[in-house]
Amino acid sequence: MQIIHTIHGLRAWRRAAGTVAFVPTMGNLHEGHLALVREARRRADNVVVSIFVNRLQFGQGEDFDRYPRTLQQDAAKLADEGVAVVFAPDEKELYPNVEQRYNIEPPNLQNELCGKFRPGHFRGVATVVAKLFNIVQPDAACFGKKDYQQLAVIKGLVEDLNINIDIVPVDTGRASDGLALSSRNQYLNGQERAEAPRLYRELCTIADAVRSGNLAYAVLEQAAAQRLSAAGWVVDYIEVRRADDLSVAHAGDNHLVILAAARLGATRLIDNIEVHLG
Amino acid sequence: MQIIHTIHGLRAWRRAAGTVAFVPTMGNLHEGHLALVREARRRADNVVVSIFVNRLQFGQGEDFDRYPRTLQQDAAKLADEGVAVVFAPDEKELYPNVEQRYNIEPPNLQNELCGKFRPGHFRGVATVVAKLFNIVQPDAACFGKKDYQQLAVIKGLVEDLNINIDIVPVDTGRASDGLALSSRNQYLNGQERAEAPRLYRELCTIADAVRSGNLAYAVLEQAAAQRLSAAGWVVDYIEVRRADDLSVAHAGDNHLVILAAARLGATRLIDNIEVHLG
Repeated sequence: MQIIHTIHGLRAWRRAAGTVAFVPTMGNLHEGHLALVREARRRADNVVVSIFVNRLQFGQGEDFDRYPRTLQQDAAKLADEGVAVVFAPDEKELYPNVEQRYNIEPPNLQNELCGKFRPGHFRGVATVVAKLFNIVQPDAACFGKKDYQQLAVIKGLVEDLNINIDIVPVDTGRASDGLALSSRNQYLNGQERAEAPRLYRELCTIADAVRSGNLAYAVLEQAAAQRLSAAGWVVDYIEVRRADDLSVAHAGDNHLVILAAARLGATRLIDNIEVHLG
Repeated sequence: MQIIHTIHGLRAWRRAAGTVAFVPTMGNLHEGHLALVREARRRADNVVVSIFVNRLQFGQGEDFDRYPRTLQQDAAKLADEGVAVVFAPDEKELYPNVEQRYNIEPPNLQNELCGKFRPGHFRGVATVVAKLFNIVQPDAACFGKKDYQQLAVIKGLVEDLNINIDIVPVDTGRASDGLALSSRNQYLNGQERAEAPRLYRELCTIADAVRSGNLAYAVLEQAAAQRLSAAGWVVDYIEVRRADDLSVAHAGDNHLVILAAARLGATRLIDNIEVHLG
């Protein structure tokens, strides 16, 4: 496995490589990332994993500075998974002009759900992913469903900008108690970690109710939010949406996703669950 | 020469093709376009020319509806020039969702010079060019210096989004009286056509003065604008700028471009001239 730090080096490698499946990450890899890598291996001759903590997608006061950077450990894990190349550019390599002048501007979805609480986040995600796609030029790219709204943005930009890359969604990895795997879980103290799986349980509760025919989404959402608040969470949102475009769900929609973001102490956790009816 | 109307068809051709140089156009081809094509032929095994009148870059009240569409004549000219493929998608092929949801957002330069008079124009240009680049996947692409600000936007987006395409600027084609070749010249009536070369003459007058050491740009700009107004033009702007990034020029800058846009009757003409000092 090669670790490549420059765009020039990556392009030189790419010219001689066969098909490539790509997994963009911010590093600090856990089993959820490794599931993406394993799916990528099934899709192409070579797997490229990028590790880049992208300042553009962090807001003011967010955790850009303390986001865990663990390149050596990450590289060891990826070597074990048969990855061909780790692309780990430094900030000046991807943003030589300090300011990114040309950005991918997503539609209004970027201001809903997580976007409402993280202004500019999805612009930053869309822009860095477009840059990485242009550098790596993969045939396929794997994204976790854990970041469901991010996945929707990537699908949209690939479709709208005619990017010739197969976007592969991968199921969320979970701890045995249901907590979605996330680099941010390590910010939780012991008590918070014990409490954290409640987020997923509440999503399951709504999903079960919907599957049983209860389509009073607003009532279900509010009840779940209240239970989370009572348990000490600060709820950003918990909502039933259409799975295809994340627009507001109505009775009669069959492909749904229930999404939530909530804070436990200083840590913001997100999760979601898909529900397919009829 | 093949005329291909679908993205799928173009991609299928592309897979089997060698290197490609690309000339994006809105059709209604004149000698200026053919100069781009000839430069493209020198750059790659195959030349692809796209013909697409891009609604996204026209403002309200602009000439989208009456913009001349002359595919048959254009194709005949391109066949004579040894072009491999004409890519002529219809609107639904490039904009299947009616609304383009994800756009390339250029920096503030998009609101200056022509952008001040054509809000959204350079967003529309950048977005359609990014789409066409993703479809055609050329090694090089040729753009005329006549649309100097457009060229600056394309260069910026290619650099900022790490698009691996060599951008080739090509000198402006001119009629024998100096008028820059443009599809919009055919909107001019006989009297206007006779008057039209004054725009270039005024640019040359400023260029000569600057070359002679007169760096009072504002004075030169104002005098030229007044002469144009006196001759019946409505001047949008006439400005000396830095050639590299189109920022405002100051004494001491050596690579300059003098740009103008002005209307003669209902027709808006643009032109520019580069000046290299020292």
